[in-house]
Amino acid sequence: MVSPFFFVEATPCLRPMNDIDIEGLKGIANQLRIHSIAATTAAGSGHPTSCCSAADLVAALFFGHMRYNPKDPHYYNNDRFILSKGHAAPLLYAAWAETGLFPVEDLLKLRQLDSDLEGHPTPRLPFVDVATGSLGQGLSVGVGMALCGRLDKLDYRTYVLLGDGECAEGSVWEAASLAGIYQLNNLVAVVDVNRLGQSQPTAFEHNLDVYKRRFEAFGWRTEEIDGHDVEEIIEVLAAAGLGSQPLVILAKTLKGAGISFIQDKEGWHGRPLSREEATRAIAELQPSAKSGIGHPIAAPSQLPAPKNDPPASYPPTSYKMGDSVATREAYGNALVRIGESDQRVVAMDGDTKNSTYSEKFYKKFPNRFTECFIAEQNMVGVATGFAARGKVPFVSTFACFFTRAFDQVRVAGISLANIKLTGSHVGASIGEDGPSQMGLEDIAMMRTVAGSTVLYPSDAVCAEKLVEQMAQHKGICFLRTSRPKTTVLYNNDEQFPIGGAKILRQSAGDKVTIVAAGVTLYEALKAADELKGQGVGITVIDAYSVKPLAKELIKGAAAQTQNLVITVEDHYAEGGLGDAVAGELSGEGVRVHKLAVRELPHSGKPEELLAKYGIDARAIVAKVKELNR
Amino acid sequence: MVSPFFFVEATPCLRPMNDIDIEGLKGIANQLRIHSIAATTAAGSGHPTSCCSAADLVAALFFGHMRYNPKDPHYYNNDRFILSKGHAAPLLYAAWAETGLFPVEDLLKLRQLDSDLEGHPTPRLPFVDVATGSLGQGLSVGVGMALCGRLDKLDYRTYVLLGDGECAEGSVWEAASLAGIYQLNNLVAVVDVNRLGQSQPTAFEHNLDVYKRRFEAFGWRTEEIDGHDVEEIIEVLAAAGLGSQPLVILAKTLKGAGISFIQDKEGWHGRPLSREEATRAIAELQPSAKSGIGHPIAAPSQLPAPKNDPPASYPPTSYKMGDSVATREAYGNALVRIGESDQRVVAMDGDTKNSTYSEKFYKKFPNRFTECFIAEQNMVGVATGFAARGKVPFVSTFACFFTRAFDQVRVAGISLANIKLTGSHVGASIGEDGPSQMGLEDIAMMRTVAGSTVLYPSDAVCAEKLVEQMAQHKGICFLRTSRPKTTVLYNNDEQFPIGGAKILRQSAGDKVTIVAAGVTLYEALKAADELKGQGVGITVIDAYSVKPLAKELIKGAAAQTQNLVITVEDHYAEGGLGDAVAGELSGEGVRVHKLAVRELPHSGKPEELLAKYGIDARAIVAKVKELNR
Repeated sequence: MVSPFFFVEATPCLRPMNDIDIEGLKGIANQLRIHSIAATTAAGSGHPTSCCSAADLVAALFFGHMRYNPKDPHYYNNDRFILSKGHAAPLLYAAWAETGLFPVEDLLKLRQLDSDLEGHPTPRLPFVDVATGSLGQGLSVGVGMALCGRLDKLDYRTYVLLGDGECAEGSVWEAASLAGIYQLNNLVAVVDVNRLGQSQPTAFEHNLDVYKRRFEAFGWRTEEIDGHDVEEIIEVLAAAGLGSQPLVILAKTLKGAGISFIQDKEGWHGRPLSREEATRAIAELQPSAKSGIGHPIAAPSQLPAPKNDPPASYPPTSYKMGDSVATREAYGNALVRIGESDQRVVAMDGDTKNSTYSEKFYKKFPNRFTECFIAEQNMVGVATGFAARGKVPFVSTFACFFTRAFDQVRVAGISLANIKLTGSHVGASIGEDGPSQMGLEDIAMMRTVAGSTVLYPSDAVCAEKLVEQMAQHKGICFLRTSRPKTTVLYNNDEQFPIGGAKILRQSAGDKVTIVAAGVTLYEALKAADELKGQGVGITVIDAYSVKPLAKELIKGAAAQTQNLVITVEDHYAEGGLGDAVAGELSGEGVRVHKLAVRELPHSGKPEELLAKYGIDARAIVAKVKELNR
Repeated sequence: MVSPFFFVEATPCLRPMNDIDIEGLKGIANQLRIHSIAATTAAGSGHPTSCCSAADLVAALFFGHMRYNPKDPHYYNNDRFILSKGHAAPLLYAAWAETGLFPVEDLLKLRQLDSDLEGHPTPRLPFVDVATGSLGQGLSVGVGMALCGRLDKLDYRTYVLLGDGECAEGSVWEAASLAGIYQLNNLVAVVDVNRLGQSQPTAFEHNLDVYKRRFEAFGWRTEEIDGHDVEEIIEVLAAAGLGSQPLVILAKTLKGAGISFIQDKEGWHGRPLSREEATRAIAELQPSAKSGIGHPIAAPSQLPAPKNDPPASYPPTSYKMGDSVATREAYGNALVRIGESDQRVVAMDGDTKNSTYSEKFYKKFPNRFTECFIAEQNMVGVATGFAARGKVPFVSTFACFFTRAFDQVRVAGISLANIKLTGSHVGASIGEDGPSQMGLEDIAMMRTVAGSTVLYPSDAVCAEKLVEQMAQHKGICFLRTSRPKTTVLYNNDEQFPIGGAKILRQSAGDKVTIVAAGVTLYEALKAADELKGQGVGITVIDAYSVKPLAKELIKGAAAQTQNLVITVEDHYAEGGLGDAVAGELSGEGVRVHKLAVRELPHSGKPEELLAKYGIDARAIVAKVKELNR
């Protein structure tokens, strides 16, 4: 299987082994231990023993191997470091403080409300690319960064520090598999095998051979080392980037290493030392501790910066009103149209590209498309990695399969990641495939994501314009696309600002305001026509922006229709468009009646299902009449 | 092809290899192919080529190996079969029709609204234990069934048929790992390696060695075969259950096998044959096709039935009003209390048992507890497997980590699975660990699950009573538990019916109704006390049942407070308690104002965070005053 990406020859390690101050690194490792213990004891919470097991690894990486400019954590060709075992945050903070980036005294503000040094790392911190803390996600992000490095013709390497317990997460193996397939030799995973999980020892404890066989089977080169032997760590790191495979360093460590009365003992996960214990522990470590301040750090290469500037504008769409085009296909068209001039745009899909139409982008710009195979968790993580490197990744699969990656999307929210998710095949209107393939909860899911934007176009013009908006807007965006073809309603020069809505039908004396989107918008228009024929007027609003909602516009329309609103959505009744409208407008006295799918759907023809689940024109007409008796 | 319908009498004896009619099985396989083609062509949609690749495997399993009573698909000691590659549904339906369970003519009603033969299998059908269709989930369910078989001392084996593309899903490797760890030699996976995914070939095509090395590294015994050589299939199946490891059969197959002009060709995924193509294909297969009707099927052993009857009642709780107990701890207590007499109760956790307190059950009933390690997707699937076998599984982890398993929970809804999920550490009130560990979207997520019940106790008594309710109620239940200790509010004899709520404060002249649950209930009570001191009365409702909501009770209380309601929740504003109340009551004219977490939270002390995010007593008081100016 040919990788679509440019294959970079490995840059050999710039620093000869005998230049590296092993004793100095050991000293720094102990300084990092001291910081981790002191900070968590001061905070009264945290994971000091998880920090101690990885301290030698982190010291070696940060002060003996990685190539980066500690004064400029954002420099685009710095080696990247991802703390996948995010609960070791104090260790990461300590490492950066010891580079001199901020005062070491700040470390004692760990977990305080007014400090950016939170319980788990977030990108409020300049040296944190992505939030971690939900285990098993960092390697996916690393895969994304490694792929992006190739695309941008940069030679930075990406290092991901994982715990052993978190290797039980399937997402780790999704990432491992893709890294093996694409031969990401610019990716290095380091597994801190300290044998003790949270509530008990891991299944494999210190049996490194289990991990070795697994990673090898997934296409990785493996090295097994004593994770407290700094010389060994440096030695295996020197060979990073050689060969054609990603490298995993399996490091046998002790949880709480360095603290004689705690190391390798059960019952110490997530437990800060008492003041007295901390004093004892620090006393053990102090004599050999050394500051990292002034310790030489290898510099990154100077290479041309990637071109990540957005274009001034995009070329226009060219649909004809009345044409019949599915919004999922319009999505594919949009990707190609904006991808031409917007070099930031990359795309990925989970073996559904022929259904989501991301295949159009794949055919036009194959080196900017990543086939992620049937592994949605990893796909979202990969996108998060690309986004952290300044790209604008468009991720597509069936809307219902994004539920597979909800944790990754949730954490992407915490990461303020600039990813764009497009879920196709929404609602019962997909028809015969049945409920396992229907997106019926995606609006609810995506509304909860911190800082998200949730969009739901009805026609091709709107879909394409929203894709433009998504590319220009900073933050997580989700776009719902439908399987069936729908009629083009709008002119090519129509604008669709995020947070807006369109009033498609409105007359004085209208009885009810219908708020709909997607396929149900057309049902609402049919209902409006039918009711008009019976002398009853209804206002019809296309709520293409579910979050943020066009609250004032809807409220204004409702005010002219007895404050009565009917929402209609091809989605469950919980958490979707109806709840969005009711949740925001109920307090203002608007009465919202929800039409939605209220039972587990069945296979059937699309039109049968819209009728059966009460979201077709007939149901809307009936509801309007019921409310106007 | 029309066959007369009649039942096959099972022969209760072991079947030597030379008793197996290989030619007969080949003929049945082709009959299954014919059915799959005819049904999908009639439906105009479906996946005939995915059925054809697996037809020999399914024929061999159903008619040459598995021990079951086809007249009684629910018999508790039947071998179990899970079609993890759920899109091959027509093949499964055909197999069962050919056992005589229902008329083969029914197969042509595939995907019709009035037929139970849906696009992907659901348990509306008696021979389907769990819904499939979202790939990569079947093996987890199989692991649960295999574990349950051991618990129940039954000798049925569980067979899971997977596609090769779906092995990219990390959940497959979570399941594989656990099966290896627990040495589930009563579990057999069969991988239909037909090399062609949906939109392109899989990464490894027919390279069986890749799969072999992976499964071996995960602790499985492996067999590689020609998936169209029925004799080979039968031969390797004969060794199922031998040794101490689970067995995986890696079968090299051709997508569309049996149809000369389609087999192994790209572009045929999910594509029905045209009428003309179907006629040609069936003509190729007909001469060798044989009916399965009358073909002998191996009988299951007769073993004592597992005891899966619920007890008449549970022993009482013994809390003292005013005690300080976290609801997460009460959960642990409840599991032990009901577990004593309710043999159906089993539990599982993802290495958080010391935090969720499921550890109490683990210590008391270790053989009924499954440590699933840090792999939540698989854990939910395992629970679904146990539930399919009549157990009542209680699954626990942090609420936020259930987002990792949203797809599995969604499909469990489609499966009508009787699983009980308890998510701890909800809300910003967990404090210093920060947002990656906070459950802020779990109510929204769980509300969308088909048929779910969503419960949110505030004190220990309520938590324990709700656990009882969950055990007795049929369907998916989700319980939110909090990290901080809270005061016991209720007597031990208080009842908490699902769908109910408790009015804790109410007086004539109350200005607003506050609806809260969990930690915010206590904030509401504090606010009530403070406002009372200022001469303002508020009604306070404990909405421990979020879904179903105590709609009439809340509506009735609101009617006496100017139809004004304030909801307060330790959850995001989207999709939670507030949206639930607004969504249901807005249409009735109730005005709902939501207090909730409206920004990405930060690490800090619990009380600081409740204040910062506007969900503490002070915020409630301020809101009441604002609404009553």
